[in-house]
This record gives sequence, structure tokens and C-alpha cells, in this order.
Amino acid sequence: MSMVSPPRLGVLVSGRGSNLRAILDAIDRGSLHARVAIVISSKNDVPALQIAEDAGIPWRVIRGAEYSSRAAEGAAIVAELRAAMVDLVVTAGYGRIFDASVVEAYRWRIINIHPSLLPAFAGSMAPGPQAQALAAGVKIAGCTTHFITEETDAGPIIMQAAVPVLDDDTVETLAERILREEHKILPASIAAVLAGTVRVVDRRTIQVTEAKDARS
Amino acid sequence: MSMVSPPRLGVLVSGRGSNLRAILDAIDRGSLHARVAIVISSKNDVPALQIAEDAGIPWRVIRGAEYSSRAAEGAAIVAELRAAMVDLVVTAGYGRIFDASVVEAYRWRIINIHPSLLPAFAGSMAPGPQAQALAAGVKIAGCTTHFITEETDAGPIIMQAAVPVLDDDTVETLAERILREEHKILPASIAAVLAGTVRVVDRRTIQVTEAKDARS
Repeated sequence: MSMVSPPRLGVLVSGRGSNLRAILDAIDRGSLHARVAIVISSKNDVPALQIAEDAGIPWRVIRGAEYSSRAAEGAAIVAELRAAMVDLVVTAGYGRIFDASVVEAYRWRIINIHPSLLPAFAGSMAPGPQAQALAAGVKIAGCTTHFITEETDAGPIIMQAAVPVLDDDTVETLAERILREEHKILPASIAAVLAGTVRVVDRRTIQVTEAKDARS
Repeated sequence: MSMVSPPRLGVLVSGRGSNLRAILDAIDRGSLHARVAIVISSKNDVPALQIAEDAGIPWRVIRGAEYSSRAAEGAAIVAELRAAMVDLVVTAGYGRIFDASVVEAYRWRIINIHPSLLPAFAGSMAPGPQAQALAAGVKIAGCTTHFITEETDAGPIIMQAAVPVLDDDTVETLAERILREEHKILPASIAAVLAGTVRVVDRRTIQVTEAKDARS
């Protein structure tokens, strides 16, 4: 990654794009030295694409249903990321699970945000992690950034943030409280990984003071 | 429970008894209006029994191996708790799983403390929850108080507390950090349940301003 032009991010989305916006805000504020080179959505006509359009960021829609296999879908994603010369991939509310070839192509260079304190409430099956947390009656919920590996929601954790669960929470109020923390730890995690201060050791990540490669 | 003489606790232990000490300290400080009527240990010669002895609290050892069945062990426990006229049972580092008859005899009147943010790292199989948290690479760990039901570590949660996991943590340093929070939320949970302000609704507990029965 050159220090002259900022590192290039590929952001994958499926919905309203609030985490994409948080990344763009962090870049605007100067707290994240990066540039979103491409936005890829798994769905047509989602608000996230409007955010990309408004920010002048190239975007593509890659819908699983349009590909003959998950591998073909993965190849299309990798082709777009490579064409955009992406250094780091961020899945920000992306509703699909990658083909292993994508993970392999961007090993230790894909970051996901998940709205639970993993390993609790892994997976994104309905009801979502926030609803699962509420149903389980936990008093503390939160969110997690982690590297994507072949195992869903089980890659090395980069950062976590906790929030209280209130007695009168609905899924919506809890999800919003968690989302505010997502908007902090996702840009912070991207910045830390780009700075090379996050190192993967076994299944854990540790912060190192000297910049090093994220690979263990 | 009479407001004249304090509610009577039965505390079950298996080890060093630091949570028993935290309960006794909270009583001494006046932040917990209760009295430990009996301490029951699943093991001989553990420090927890010395704490009971020094505090002038009657204690018994009920070792599973000495009973022909888990039901017989449970009956012995219930007999001791009843003889001590216990209002609320607290398992504080107790290494055994109750027979269902104990749960039934003290329905919504048994509180457990578990050194993880349940539902993560439930169970007390080796390695313990703190070691599991460390191995999983979580950045936030914690502890949970909950009512004991027939399902292990899955009863309604009363309180939780979170602590950071540090890069240089060992199982011991993390366990100590969690333990300091256990010493806060366990007496606080006992006090809330005794005050009748904790109400079980479905699988969740909620705080009510009027004192009510804990039963849903």
C-alpha cells in the first residue's frame, strides 16, 4: 500500500449502508486514511448504492441469483475488487456468505462487522443477532469486527464494543444502540488493520506498536 | 420473608469461596440485607469452608461420590437447606450440577454466578469459561448472574458485567478481572431478588419498581 495515495477499500453492502456512511464520514474527518474505491451490493436499489452514487464512488450489483454457482459469484466479486485495485475488503451489512475463493484471494484482508458480541449469536439467519440477544434475555449486547475466514463469523476478532440491553428495548431500539457502536469500531478497525498494527496470532488478534503485516 | 429478621441465604461452594466472602462483605457493609444461614460445599477442606467457620456460619460437606444417585445427593442438599430455613439459594463457584428436584424445591430461588457473558462459554467443562474466552480471542469478557433452571447455564439472566480482555492476559489475569466484577454483581443480584424487584417474563428478567414476586 502506497503512503502517497490512500489505501483502497472495497465495501460490500446489502441494505441501507449506514456502516458505509460511517466509513466515508471517518475518511472525511481524517480519522481514516483510506479511499472507498468500489461499492458492491448483493441487492438492487438499496440505499447503500445511493450513498455510493452521491459520493461519486463506482458501484456494482452482484446478485447471487444471477450466477450459476457460488464460485462463479465469487469470481465476479474478486474480478471487480481486482479491477478496482482494492487493498482491503470490508463487508458492512453484506447479506451473503463468500465463496472460499474470495476469502483465499483476500486472506487477512477482509473485515466483517457483526451486530453481536461474538461468539454469541453468530450467523445472520432470521431472527437477526439483535433479536436473538433480546430473546435470550442478555443484559449486555454489542458488536464485533473480525477477519473473515472460511468459517462463518468465527475469524479472529479485531474489536468489540458492548452496550446495555434495557428492559423496554425492542429489536429496533437495541439494533440502533448497537449500530452506533458499529459506526465507531468499524472505521477504527479498518484504520488499525491498514496501519498494520493488528497481528493475527493463532485465532486471536493482538495490537502491536510497530506496524507489521496482519498475517500471522 | 420477614422484614424483622433478615432473609436467610444458603450458599453452595466448591473452592476458595471468594464470592462467599463478597456476599459476607456486602452484608457487613449493609448493602445486602441478608444472613448466610448455611454453607454447603461439594468438596472437603476447601478455603470456602474456613471462611464459613471463621464467620461462625454452620457448614456441611455434601460430596456427590457419597450418594447412590444424583437424586439422593439432591435430597440431602434440600434437607440441609430446609433445616436451615433458607429463603434463597446461591451457587457461588459450585462445581456440581443440581438434580432437578433441587431446582423444583427452590424454583426462582436459586441464583448462580457464571464467569462469562452467557450464552457465550456456557458450561463449566475444562477448560473453564475464562480460558475458552481467551482461546476464542474475544476482546470483551465478563460474568453473568442467572436463575438456575433445569437447563445448565441457560436460566433467566439477572445481571451481567463486561470487562476488557487485554493482549497480554493469561487465564489467571483475565479470571481475576472477571472475579472483581462477580464480587459486585452477585451481592447486587441477591439484593435485587430479595427486594422482589426482579421479575421473570418469558426467558428474560426485568426490573420492576414495585416489589413483586420473582415468579412469572
